[in-house]
This record gives sequence, structure tokens and C-alpha cells, in this order.
Amino acid sequence: MHPLDSPSHGISRRAWLTTASGLVAAGLVRGQGDAVKLAAATPEPLQQAAAPNEIPGRLVSELGSRAPAERPRRLVRAQALSSSSRTPLQDLHGIITPADLHFERHHAGIPDIGADEHELLIHGMVDRPITLSVADLKRFPAVSRICFIECSGNGGAGYSDGDLPSEITPQALDGLLSTSEWTGVPLSTLLREVGVRDGASWLLAEGGDAAMLARSVPIEKAMDDALIVYAQNGEAIRPEQGYPVRLLLPGWEGNAQVKWLRRIEVTDRPTHTREETSRYTDPLADGTARQFSFVMDAKSLITFPAYPYSLPERGWWEVSGLAWSGRGRITRVEVSTDTGRSWVDAEIQSPVLSKCTVRFRHLWNWDGRETVLMSRATDETGYVQPTLERLLAARGARTSYHWNNVRAWRVLRDGSVSFGLVL
Amino acid sequence: MHPLDSPSHGISRRAWLTTASGLVAAGLVRGQGDAVKLAAATPEPLQQAAAPNEIPGRLVSELGSRAPAERPRRLVRAQALSSSSRTPLQDLHGIITPADLHFERHHAGIPDIGADEHELLIHGMVDRPITLSVADLKRFPAVSRICFIECSGNGGAGYSDGDLPSEITPQALDGLLSTSEWTGVPLSTLLREVGVRDGASWLLAEGGDAAMLARSVPIEKAMDDALIVYAQNGEAIRPEQGYPVRLLLPGWEGNAQVKWLRRIEVTDRPTHTREETSRYTDPLADGTARQFSFVMDAKSLITFPAYPYSLPERGWWEVSGLAWSGRGRITRVEVSTDTGRSWVDAEIQSPVLSKCTVRFRHLWNWDGRETVLMSRATDETGYVQPTLERLLAARGARTSYHWNNVRAWRVLRDGSVSFGLVL
Repeated sequence: MHPLDSPSHGISRRAWLTTASGLVAAGLVRGQGDAVKLAAATPEPLQQAAAPNEIPGRLVSELGSRAPAERPRRLVRAQALSSSSRTPLQDLHGIITPADLHFERHHAGIPDIGADEHELLIHGMVDRPITLSVADLKRFPAVSRICFIECSGNGGAGYSDGDLPSEITPQALDGLLSTSEWTGVPLSTLLREVGVRDGASWLLAEGGDAAMLARSVPIEKAMDDALIVYAQNGEAIRPEQGYPVRLLLPGWEGNAQVKWLRRIEVTDRPTHTREETSRYTDPLADGTARQFSFVMDAKSLITFPAYPYSLPERGWWEVSGLAWSGRGRITRVEVSTDTGRSWVDAEIQSPVLSKCTVRFRHLWNWDGRETVLMSRATDETGYVQPTLERLLAARGARTSYHWNNVRAWRVLRDGSVSFGLVL
Repeated sequence: MHPLDSPSHGISRRAWLTTASGLVAAGLVRGQGDAVKLAAATPEPLQQAAAPNEIPGRLVSELGSRAPAERPRRLVRAQALSSSSRTPLQDLHGIITPADLHFERHHAGIPDIGADEHELLIHGMVDRPITLSVADLKRFPAVSRICFIECSGNGGAGYSDGDLPSEITPQALDGLLSTSEWTGVPLSTLLREVGVRDGASWLLAEGGDAAMLARSVPIEKAMDDALIVYAQNGEAIRPEQGYPVRLLLPGWEGNAQVKWLRRIEVTDRPTHTREETSRYTDPLADGTARQFSFVMDAKSLITFPAYPYSLPERGWWEVSGLAWSGRGRITRVEVSTDTGRSWVDAEIQSPVLSKCTVRFRHLWNWDGRETVLMSRATDETGYVQPTLERLLAARGARTSYHWNNVRAWRVLRDGSVSFGLVL
């Protein structure tokens, strides 16, 4: 029987129920008779030096701040005008990315644009070209959705170079991925407003940065679920996310989701801009290239355990990570803890939203031996995250985007974890 | 036929489809022939003074920041050691609250607690009392969920005083409400770990602040969906939210969700602490009081239009707001735009999660006359948000918590909006 066909779904739940005793056996949980003596039915302070409960705390503030010891940071890379920053995936829980930790990828930096002056022009093959202020956009009926944005170059740091790094974090490897709740106007509403003419089939979306980044988008996507967004996680989107408005194309590569959006031109063909000819195409083995490979295919990544963290001891550990697909919902995440010999279904944390990351969890009893951990996502279309071998067989060795192949983390006997090429 | 029985669900969708022409008719959307001349199939800069696209932007950073013009702020109130800050609901979109805008309510300020020194003691009627470090807690299998926290005193600023204010914002009225994705350990896991003894029926949760705030919680809730959380919106919870760990009781009043949690004592009766005898009880008309009124009943609030915003002109406006219930999912939100004469179903934005806020939207064609806007939520238990009259009839005039009655906003002919007592 193929391991994928085995009734393995109950494993993690059974393991979960036995975790407690496992932790006790491992000596992780410390019984403390002394502390018990201190506690009584009426609250009494624990005996601590300079106890925080003995002195008044600071008062409320207009804006909260992180605990001084907590310093999540994006990993920044900048070369002249080309720059990126990556989300610290190994330090985050759940699926939501705080706005100030959302990844960035810019071709000419972050322009300084005021919301009051900014306008969005919609023109081309339309009956009634219009210019909309941000206030105009906010008056249209709004839609909110939680979804991921991923740069199509994500993973390239791990796979695009034949010489694979072993000391690479989830952040450095796949940190061009973030998840937010976005709010804005359906692009379909605006296109009905302007009246799209017969024969129109594409549109050009142009940003207001110095790169004037522009991408062609099929009008089907625009009429489906594209949004012109002005809010992220409740508040105004940040300048580095396209303030005051960006194009949101749920499930599609980040580059096409044009930031600082200032112009949409309705056309009858793709415009073949610089960013979709010289870049953001996928070279194939036969010398041609995939162009307009918009959709981010199903992918998953274990974020713990992963480099640079190590396991201090054998025993029960929760393997946890993210899975996502640009084609819809994630339906299954399998985890292998034995270098791919067997796979079991991980628990998928609800809610499972379309074109959104999900958190998966799998309880693993490490026996202290060297092994390799992997995860494999399946989405509602039946697409299964491929091995690196299959991905390279399909695309050729020169491929440089859309690295959604299975990731592997090698665990050594000393508990250290390194990035490992397997499959 | 009762208006609630009418097949009104399709109204907002039809209205939505006609919005575009409505906006054109109202002159909101400006056709701009000039701008069209500037645009061509090949990208060209729009003619702007000091155009942001003509100069390189700033590069990436380790932490993002808000646009300088965007200054969402909590509304702070502090009296000696008692203090609160309120979420700017009228300025937020969707459901997620950024962590630095999450409301606060403290009885002795925010203690300065280090994660490395903090410990959680679980003792009382248990077989194996334990003390857990934060690292210990993080090793247990985790759960993430998106849910609201609301202070049981929320709304008191609008209703607890007989002299109702007219100039009050959603923030000042109901800003002791926020929504986050929380991650932590199920309390049920920890209680299985320690072995709860026969006869145990409650627990006492004690915080590490100078108020040593302590609340009694029925053990059924602890075994149901209570979490010991250490993460909020992906990152470590903020000091003002209980860093390093707080108790999360989804759907229950905020006060019981003890911050800076340091001790859980399993008991066979409620402890009757100061915070559940002198406070956080609901006086009734007969001189007795409701005690342990934990659940936050279904409630909704229109956040636009609302004071201090005004409508600059008649025509189509999207009425938008939040609805939530501590008993489960919101199943219906009705909106009245005619002072309660008729009610129509608002659109409810997915995802609709249990014990979580939902965003509702209703497209409204304002005819320019004075009127009152109201919303009314229903949850999956069939509970319907009551009128103020019904709430006071049930609880008496001296009630001072759990103000979940229908809110009303009065719109005057000049477009100004004020808080209004109706029903």
C-alpha cells in the first residue's frame, strides 16, 4: 500500500493526547513542590526578586510597542535600486504577518507618495475613462480577504545556484512570502464603471515608482478576484506595500500585484513590458521560456525545526510550517520525518482559506538519530507539490522562478538542523 | 409580513451592481479626457510636479513604518492606576486589529516582565503540580485562532450615564474591542498534564501585575477552548497584552482573560475574588446582581457612517461595521436606514469564524433626509441583539456591563452624524 493511502490522519491526534506524559518523561516539565507551598486559595505573591507585581506598571499609550527582548526583523538585501526584505518565518506563529514584517521587493525603492495627490487612471479600450482619487476608491463597496503574497523568485536563494547552502533560514530561503488581510475595491466594479469595450482581453497595470513597474494582466483575472487595495491588516497599507493603493491578484506572483498603482490601461493584447520579457519568465530546457506564469503553485515549508534552531534533546517536538496555493484551498499537507520513506498527514489549522497560507502541525517523536524532515502540500485542484527532481525535469536546469519544490531540513545527531537537498 | 421575513437578501447585491452608474450620476467619479491623452500603450510618466516616479525611492528596512500622514491612534484614559486605551474602530477596515492598536484595560499598569524569568504555576486539585517556563509552553502542540477580545465594560461610555453623549466616536463608544490571531497551548492539554482531581470544577487564574488581577473560571471552559497564548498576529504578544503569556477565553469578557498569567489553581468552587464581587458583576433591578456573566452576547456596531465623519452629499454610501458573538458564529446582520421602520440583511464578509468579528456591509442610497442608521446581529444560537429598552427591562437601570444593545447613528440633513438613542 502506498503510504499516502494509509489511514494516517489520526496519528497526530493520538500523539497529541500522549504528549503530556512524553514531556514529563523527557524531564521537560518540572514538578515544583516548593512553588506549591507558596500558593493558596487566596492570591499571594510568588517570592521573586524585584517582583513586577510589587510595583505599579507603566500606563497605557496611544500606540503599543514590542517587548524590548522581542526583536523580529526583516532580512534586507539591497543592490543599487534593487532591494528586498524578507519575513522572519521561523519566528512567527499562525498565518498573519504584522504589516511591518511583510516582505518587500522593489526595483527602484519606495516612492514618497501622498494619498491626497495620488490618482488612478483607468483608460484604453473603455467607454468612459476615469481618474479616481483614493477617496473615490474608498467610496465604492469594499471587499476584505486574507491571502498570501509571494514573490515568484522566492526560494531562489536555496535552489537557483547549483551550490546549495546548508546554513539558510526559512526567512532567507522563502521569506518573500507574507499573509495579510487586505481591503479594497473589486477591480471588476471599476471595469464595469468604465465600460470595457468588445475585444478587450488584457490590461496593463503601472506603478508610480521610479521603476515604473508595469505588468500585463488577463482581463479574466481582473473580473474574477482582483482588488485595488488601500488597507492591510485593518489600517492604511504601508508605503513599502504600495501606499496609497496597490493591485492585489490573489494567488498570483507578487510582481504582478503592482504597488503605488497609478494607471490601468485596458488592451486587446499583453503589453510585453520589461518585467515580463527580460524578467519574470521561466527559461525552459528547450531554449524557450514560460511567459505570464502568474499562478503560485502549491507549496509548503517547515518553519520549525529549521536552521538556525536546533533540538536540545530527543523526544516529542511539534513540526510546524506553512502551506499555500495560488489555485485555491490547501486540502492536504503530508510530513515525512524519515527522509521520505513514509509520509503522514499533518494537522491543518483552521481556517483554511482560498489562496491563503495555512499553518500545519505534526507531532514527532525524535529518536535522536540523523534524519531529514520534509513537507508536501496538495491543493483543491489535486495538484501536489513536486520534488526538486520533477521540477527540474519539467523546466530544465536554467529555471529561475517559481521554486515550489519540496523543501528538506536535515537533523543531525547533535540536534542541529541544516538545509538539505533531498528528492 | 414582518420585515425580517422578507426575501431581502438579494438587495445589496443588486444595489452593488448598480453602484457604478449611481456614482457617475452623483458626480463622484470624474471622467478625465485630458489624462487619457497622456497615456499610451507604452508606459509614459504622467505629468506631475516633482513626480515620485522621477526620483529613486528609499530602500528596504528591517522594520516597516506607517505613511507619515496615517496616524491611527488609540484613545487613552488613565486615572491613577486604572487605565484604558481604545481601538480606532472608525478608521479600520476588515476585522484584524494591528497589535499596536489593540485595546488595553489595566488595573495597575503594564508590568515589566521578562520572558526568560516568567513561570506559570499550575497547582491546587491536581495530581502533579508543575511550573512551566515560556519555553516549556512553546514546546507543547500549539493552536492558532482568530477571535475577538472585548471588555465587558465596552459601550458603557455611551449608555451607563443617563445623559447620553451625541458626539462620541465608535472608538470612544466601543473601542474596547479588538481582533487578533492568537497562538498558544490549549489549557486542556496542560490540565491533562497535571491530572485534575475528582471534584474539581473551577480554577483561579492570577496575573503577575501589581493589581494581581485574579478571576475564577469554570473548568468546562478551560477544557473547551481556553488557550495559554504567547503569540498575537504571528509575533510575541505585546507587554500590554500580557507578555509573555495571557489566558485566552474565546468569546468571554476580556477581564477574565488574565494577562501576565503566572498561576492557575484548580479548585472545587469559585474563589470570589475582588474582580468578580466588587466589580464585573451586573446589578439587577431586584437588588441582586449577575455574577460570572462571562459570555459576550451578540452585538454589532456601524463604524461608517458614524461620528465624527459626515456625508458630503446624498447618494450611494456603503454602511459598514462589525458584528460578533461570544456564543459562536454570526449568522445574520440586519441594517435599518429608516429609523427602524424596515430592516434588510447586510452582506457578511467571509470568513465567518466562531467568536470572531465579521465585517458587514450594506449599500445605502441616502436621499438627503434626516434618518437614523442601526444594525442588529443574530448568532448561531438564534440570539438576537436586543434593543436598549429590552436590555434595561431585563437588567434594570443600574446595569453597568455588557452593553450589547442596538447602536444608532443619526444622520442630519447636512450630512453630519451623531450618536443617537433610538429603540
